[in-house]
Amino acid sequence: MAERAALEELVRLQGERVRGLKQQKASTEQIEEEVAKLLKLKAQLGPDESKQKFVLKTPKGTRDYSPRQMAVREKVFDVIIRCFKRHGAEVIDTPVFELKVPFARYLAMNKLTNIKRYHIAKVYRRDNPAMTRGRYREFYQCDFDIAGQFDPMIPDAECLKIMCEILSSLQIGDFLVKVNDRRILDGMFAICGVPDSKFRTICSSVDKLDKVSWEEVKNEMVGEKGLAPEVADHIGDYVQQHGGVSLVEQLLQDPKLSQSKQALEGLGDLKLLFEYLTLFGIADKISFDLSLARGLDYYTGVIYEAVLLQTPTGAGEEPLGVGSVAAGGRYDGLVGMFDPKGRRVPCVGLSIGVERIFSIVEQRLEALEEKVRTTETQVLVASAQKKLLEERLKLVSELWDAGIKAELLYKKNPKLLNQLQYCEEAGIPLVAIIGEQELKEGVIKLRSVASREEVDVRREDLVEEIRRRTSQPLCIC
Amino acid sequence: MAERAALEELVRLQGERVRGLKQQKASTEQIEEEVAKLLKLKAQLGPDESKQKFVLKTPKGTRDYSPRQMAVREKVFDVIIRCFKRHGAEVIDTPVFELKVPFARYLAMNKLTNIKRYHIAKVYRRDNPAMTRGRYREFYQCDFDIAGQFDPMIPDAECLKIMCEILSSLQIGDFLVKVNDRRILDGMFAICGVPDSKFRTICSSVDKLDKVSWEEVKNEMVGEKGLAPEVADHIGDYVQQHGGVSLVEQLLQDPKLSQSKQALEGLGDLKLLFEYLTLFGIADKISFDLSLARGLDYYTGVIYEAVLLQTPTGAGEEPLGVGSVAAGGRYDGLVGMFDPKGRRVPCVGLSIGVERIFSIVEQRLEALEEKVRTTETQVLVASAQKKLLEERLKLVSELWDAGIKAELLYKKNPKLLNQLQYCEEAGIPLVAIIGEQELKEGVIKLRSVASREEVDVRREDLVEEIRRRTSQPLCIC
Repeated sequence: MAERAALEELVRLQGERVRGLKQQKASTEQIEEEVAKLLKLKAQLGPDESKQKFVLKTPKGTRDYSPRQMAVREKVFDVIIRCFKRHGAEVIDTPVFELKVPFARYLAMNKLTNIKRYHIAKVYRRDNPAMTRGRYREFYQCDFDIAGQFDPMIPDAECLKIMCEILSSLQIGDFLVKVNDRRILDGMFAICGVPDSKFRTICSSVDKLDKVSWEEVKNEMVGEKGLAPEVADHIGDYVQQHGGVSLVEQLLQDPKLSQSKQALEGLGDLKLLFEYLTLFGIADKISFDLSLARGLDYYTGVIYEAVLLQTPTGAGEEPLGVGSVAAGGRYDGLVGMFDPKGRRVPCVGLSIGVERIFSIVEQRLEALEEKVRTTETQVLVASAQKKLLEERLKLVSELWDAGIKAELLYKKNPKLLNQLQYCEEAGIPLVAIIGEQELKEGVIKLRSVASREEVDVRREDLVEEIRRRTSQPLCIC
Repeated sequence: MAERAALEELVRLQGERVRGLKQQKASTEQIEEEVAKLLKLKAQLGPDESKQKFVLKTPKGTRDYSPRQMAVREKVFDVIIRCFKRHGAEVIDTPVFELKVPFARYLAMNKLTNIKRYHIAKVYRRDNPAMTRGRYREFYQCDFDIAGQFDPMIPDAECLKIMCEILSSLQIGDFLVKVNDRRILDGMFAICGVPDSKFRTICSSVDKLDKVSWEEVKNEMVGEKGLAPEVADHIGDYVQQHGGVSLVEQLLQDPKLSQSKQALEGLGDLKLLFEYLTLFGIADKISFDLSLARGLDYYTGVIYEAVLLQTPTGAGEEPLGVGSVAAGGRYDGLVGMFDPKGRRVPCVGLSIGVERIFSIVEQRLEALEEKVRTTETQVLVASAQKKLLEERLKLVSELWDAGIKAELLYKKNPKLLNQLQYCEEAGIPLVAIIGEQELKEGVIKLRSVASREEVDVRREDLVEEIRRRTSQPLCIC
């Protein structure tokens, strides 16, 4: 024990030495020498259960992603990125160290007045992780924005179209996009008699209406936030309404609300938006919802949030939202704050809640007990007899060079049964079996793993045949 | 000025307040309220050149990536990932906070004895950035590894095949892969009479032979590192040799070197490796180079490094390496260090020097003055007359729904010339032009931007025609 402790101390000291040299920017050579010593000491120290338990952990608030999880992530990102590209978006990347509105800073710094871009990146938060609630310190963010001075509501409508395309393609269930406008909210608060200083906090209360009843929201407004009960009731008359373009039109005629210039502007824009959404074939997915408030203070116009719907449990019940999976809105003032000359660059954008979507897809796959392939291998190059390693290497190389995704077992003389079993486990659909007879005849036996059917294919036709049999459309599940 | 200073102080204090609330995990609502105040104060403060210069910078040692740079990165990654997938690799992801050998920790922690995986991620270094030398604090790493107990040299050969496939596909010029074996180096040092304690430092000197002359290396060994001159000369006889499998065979017969069991093992494996590389059709790209040492101490067997070659300036000159773009080797001991039971998981892997490759591709594109497309848009939906916004929206939506990458200008009544100009600038190859006459006839005018040819296409055939005209093979340049 004493010896072990001494060795541990040596390892610790040597570790410090290495770190010190690195900080002093010592020569690579010198550092390498000390690292070598460190590794030797560690090897002498050998494994130690208590130590190992410490090492064999990911840092607090983080986790590994297994091949299965990564396969899910890849498929989700594939759907999202294909959609962004379909809409002509560019990609930019900004440093991860910068936590505040990097896109606005990027536009101002590069004097850009015009861009349609997406950005998918891992980001980090400093606060205490609550991993049980799915809050990790390391997580993905996925944003799409259109910046520029354009004719009203065309880019806004495209953002909603993009959200609908992505959520439909992901096949994670029925969804609804709630839409509102910051100006309608502000106008409504004003005509209801909410004092300016209470706009934000009342906004937050209203935003809870998707989770709790109006009574509870009212109690909070009146009890906690000191709003007059009649003002709260007045707000309640508005924020409990939701519907389509007809509600927009009805509110445009509302004798009180139409007194607010702001509200009228917002309603006018929403009316136009609904026209465009109808042309885009997605108006039935959109609900004008006066209770949608969204937290972030920088929104200046239309705001939206997509929620997944749970199937109603009884007849006549309304579908219940199970949480936001995408959201966004218009923020016309943000870039100007960063620009030395205060140049205004109107922006509209959206964020996809990818971490939430990952969980949903994973849960669904688990519930369905579906096997997720973690590779895309089309064919395993196998042999029926011994001493065919060289032939397997030659064939697999031919297939790689032709762009076919192919594997072989790294054994000199694998049993055919083991090779077939490997395909079953890895979900590889085809096996190209080399045998002595086949070599003489210039053919390869191509076997379908699912049907167990085998056919001889001329070697020169093999690539084409594999392509033909494995050209399947991409599918999320 | 005094007022400004007071406002600045207020902004500072309010900022502190917000940070404090966040640390105390105050309610979202409360934080939002304070953030709103902060933003209002900032708005009052308005733009200030000196302040703005501070804000309009990326953090030290980091940079933005423009759409052009991202397009290059995407193409490079696409080549690399397609190759990894072609070889049946899975993906795993490990937390970025963990800087030391996460793959080995992952295997040990999950008790995996068997995986072929790649990992591409942004990583971070803490040391002082030297951006002029291309050293950023934020950069990409790209690794591929095969872990498991397999028959000798099959996975090793596949790693070399992968390096060759990637470097060929990237079309960044001719290259060579230097190969050596840690055991040959160790055996050679032993029989030359290098003391055990000097193996590492002499190894580092040898590794410089690709940059400086043998004389300089010898001077370092003898002068700085205290090696006997005759020992250095003996080493020199070996390490100045390079060649193909015939050099391996020659050294297997070398009366001195063959006394080392270690060296014999290494040479035997290299001989087998060359057999496999010949079957893979890449033996001509590989050079057995006794001076290749590689720094990292955890390699236990074959090591390799790919270098780009400069075209020789004169006849008879040997091609000159311009630096490593990929490297790797076998490390059979690392995972065992992490495993509580010391279980051994042999590994072989490679890293692609993607940051270096990005620079090379960017430089080459600049030298060729090549335009890099930053979007993949296939067609712009345009109109020849005014008042056709609704028709444009309807058509672009049809195209999106059919999976076509399409854009439109966000203007109600854009001029045709402006729409065509946009295509020229963005490199969009096709324009689908809607006109009143065409609407009546049920056709769309499809224009090729390059040739300026226009043909009428029936609306129901448009998707197929766009697909047919834009189905081009992927190309790096």
